[in-house]
Amino acid sequence: MSLIKDLNWRHAVKAYDSTKKVSQENIDKVIESARLAPTSSGLQPFRLIVVEDQAIKEKLAAGALNPDCMRDCSHVLIFAAWDRYTEERIDEVYDYTTEERGLPKGRFNSYTSQLKSIYMNQAAEENFAHTARQTYIALGLALAQAAELRVDTTPVEGFDNALVDEVLELRKHNLKSVSLIYVGYANPEKDWVAPMKKVRIPKEEFVLEF
Amino acid sequence: MSLIKDLNWRHAVKAYDSTKKVSQENIDKVIESARLAPTSSGLQPFRLIVVEDQAIKEKLAAGALNPDCMRDCSHVLIFAAWDRYTEERIDEVYDYTTEERGLPKGRFNSYTSQLKSIYMNQAAEENFAHTARQTYIALGLALAQAAELRVDTTPVEGFDNALVDEVLELRKHNLKSVSLIYVGYANPEKDWVAPMKKVRIPKEEFVLEF
Repeated sequence: MSLIKDLNWRHAVKAYDSTKKVSQENIDKVIESARLAPTSSGLQPFRLIVVEDQAIKEKLAAGALNPDCMRDCSHVLIFAAWDRYTEERIDEVYDYTTEERGLPKGRFNSYTSQLKSIYMNQAAEENFAHTARQTYIALGLALAQAAELRVDTTPVEGFDNALVDEVLELRKHNLKSVSLIYVGYANPEKDWVAPMKKVRIPKEEFVLEF
Repeated sequence: MSLIKDLNWRHAVKAYDSTKKVSQENIDKVIESARLAPTSSGLQPFRLIVVEDQAIKEKLAAGALNPDCMRDCSHVLIFAAWDRYTEERIDEVYDYTTEERGLPKGRFNSYTSQLKSIYMNQAAEENFAHTARQTYIALGLALAQAAELRVDTTPVEGFDNALVDEVLELRKHNLKSVSLIYVGYANPEKDWVAPMKKVRIPKEEFVLEF
């Protein structure tokens, strides 16, 4: 299997078969690909919320542009980013990394001081613009991982973030929702986009060469 | 090969072997994975600039935090996003999609009207915040594709965007640089991070389940 084949296979599914569940083994692989995503300075400034509970999905459906997908898919994965950087959060990541690598405590102090001086001089919104960007790396990899497993997905940005944050109590984790993915198996009768050709701009237009 | 193995294999390389070039076939696969990246409403609001020319790399090195990587890597891939959405750009994408799919002209008119009313009511900076986010999906997939090919990479956000935009004349394409990737083969003598354990926060902390 190759990534290019997987990416050609996938599309943003428009309707799910509510009778089909994705196995825990496959969900775990999708989670793992998101967890392994590279992030700026390795800070992993986001978390992945995995929703399988039907009652929670019903609550989230009230804020969805495609509520049937929310209800009928197997799992909903929500990418939620840190509301801002803090010195404590940066230290926590680097203390853990230092320990895991068996390095002397404080090994990354000069580096983390630089990071802190950059991020602490920004407003929370500017921090969040940066943490939110990082989630898209993991979003893409999660979609690719699901495709490798021939599990259907729909990446979604348009939803009621405030409602999602409230239902999932993200504020108490210092997180704000950014995007989500419906994961499941398509309903071929209703997934109108499935028979359509995948269209991307031609390589000659996509690439500028020097 | 699996995506998870590939993601475990890769790391952000700190030094490249300037004598080793990545084949055009492999560069083309990395480009293709970025071209196939899903994007919001399928607009693909970014382009990929591929730099192989050493003189251009030297110019870009002046704005790099790690100028040796810029000089010594085989290729530099720069992700540059639309400076803003415009009605013309949205129409161009959907006219092409409609044609490629053999659909009646205007098939997506009501959808593109919605998109236009959203984006045209935003400031250019807000548009760019959105187009820039999309590039990260492609960034992640490009890194994964290179890893599948056992080609080394370094994703980079910290560089002099104004200098890069000027050297590559991005303004005339209505683009602004967002991130870049060094692509090549590591210099194992100098790539100090290579022997270190890959560290990610444990799954139990990364995931919140409902």
